This record gives sequence, structure tokens and C-alpha cells, in this order.
Amino acid sequence: MQNWIFLQLIICMVALPTGANSAVPDAVREIVSFNRSFENATRKMDTDATLALWAADGISLLPSTKPILGKAAIATFLSDVMASLKGAQMVKFEMACFDIVVSADWASEWCTEHQVVQFPDGKPAFDGRGKMLLVLRRGTQGAWRIEREMWNQAEPPGG
Amino acid sequence: MQNWIFLQLIICMVALPTGANSAVPDAVREIVSFNRSFENATRKMDTDATLALWAADGISLLPSTKPILGKAAIATFLSDVMASLKGAQMVKFEMACFDIVVSADWASEWCTEHQVVQFPDGKPAFDGRGKMLLVLRRGTQGAWRIEREMWNQAEPPGG
Repeated sequence: MQNWIFLQLIICMVALPTGANSAVPDAVREIVSFNRSFENATRKMDTDATLALWAADGISLLPSTKPILGKAAIATFLSDVMASLKGAQMVKFEMACFDIVVSADWASEWCTEHQVVQFPDGKPAFDGRGKMLLVLRRGTQGAWRIEREMWNQAEPPGG
Repeated sequence: MQNWIFLQLIICMVALPTGANSAVPDAVREIVSFNRSFENATRKMDTDATLALWAADGISLLPSTKPILGKAAIATFLSDVMASLKGAQMVKFEMACFDIVVSADWASEWCTEHQVVQFPDGKPAFDGRGKMLLVLRRGTQGAWRIEREMWNQAEPPGG
């Protein structure tokens, strides 16, 4: 459990008012909580909850796909994916994130994920694993949002 | 040329001494220069020059590959790749990077790349396109280094 708490103590902290030294651990706790929200929204295939985690100018970089630029384009993409998955159910979505670094209102972490999706009509379930690199930003309302997300597939089993 | 100069003016700049307001544009210029170094080192398949651009605790996230954690592991990986490509020549490597954001000594950008590799023995050339998400950090020596890199394949031609 230690290795995800890799904290980059930022230079400008020395210029912050007294009491602000707790800001970085708070940020890490907030991001851990953000990750649980991301995990839950994905597992429930809840498009609205997922979109709520994105910044307005967020960028999603998915394999074999043009860069998806901005929340409106991400909404369209998610909506198309959900339509193509009609009747499917995500029976598992687990995410583990590592090496959170925080610099003022920006943060980064990388994650591994494991998903199992069941389809209607007896089609075989999809059991996939991948990893993600995330760049987050704390918005004016204080909540962390996804600014950049990239995904690629995990190593083959036993690889 | 405008869209890569998306600058996040960081909150702690207000606490910086007079004259430091030029720090963010300087950082962007430095990162543009860093990108040219990255492009040249990759095109020349120059492992030493490539490794020099990595932070000691850098993390490389490649498709179908376990996360590569730390510069020593990245050196081993690059060395293995170069050995497997013996006699090959990268005749093209072009990279375009977008949306540089800077927060103190951390930065992020995403890039597209196009590479053409020629092999000995008349094997057909590899012509591939991908995209990258990079998280950079300015080290104590003032130079930007790669802290996190993820890559995945571009959309299919015409896609």
C-alpha cells in the first residue's frame, strides 16, 4: 500500500500560508476518493456519473481511436459505446492506482484495471485488463477532474 | 501552431518573486526544445541520448507490456529492443505535441508520432503511427525529464 503514496513536495509550498502544509496529503486523499468514484461509475456503466468526473477540456487518448478532445466529444463517444453495449453488464471493474504526484492543482497517477463484461444472448464474456495514465486537475469548485486519460492493454497473462 | 500553447497559469505564481512571471512561457519553450531532443534521439535510435531524457524514477507504460518502472528497467528494455532491431534503421520519426500544461516543476503534453523503420534483408518496412501522453518534471539541474510516458496506436488510416 506504500508505493502509491509517492508524494512530490512542491517547491511553492514554502510560499503558502501556515497550515497549508497539509494540502498535499489532503490532495492524495481526495484523489484516492476520486478514484473510487471513477471505479464505481465505470462499473455501473453510468455515463452521467463518468462524465461528471471529466474536465470541460478533458482529452481521452484511446487505442486505434482519434484523440477525443473536450467533454462534449467524450459524451458523444461514451454514448456511442453504451449504445453498442446495449444489454451488456459490467460484472467486475477493479482499478488500482499508483504513484500519485501533486503539484498545486495538477496531479498525475497511473492505474491498472480489470474488467469483466457479460453480454446478452449467451455471448462469451469479455475479460480484459489494461492500464491508464491520468492527469487530473482540481477545478474552481475544489473537485478533481480528468484532464488527460490514456489507456492501453495489459501484458498477456503470465507475460 | 496555437493549440499547443495552452497555458495553465498556476496559482502559486502569484507568490513568486517579481520577474518570475516569465517562467511559464520559458517552460513551454524549454519543453518544445525537449521534444526536439526526444524526436532526434528516437530517430537516431540513440539509446544513450534517449535515456538521458528520462527521470531516475520514470515510468514507461507500453501496450501489452508490464509497466517499466525506473530508469534502470527502461535502459534494459531499450537495450533489448535495440538488440532485436539490429541492422534496422529509423528513416523517419516525426512527433507533434499539443496542449502543454505547466504547474511549477511538472508538466504534461500529448503527442502524435509517425515512424518508418527499414529492416535489413529486404524485409518490408514498418510504417506506424501512435500517440503519447507524457508527464515531465524539471529536475534540480533545470532540465525537463520524462516521469511518465504512455503510448498507444493511432486510428487506422482514414479512420
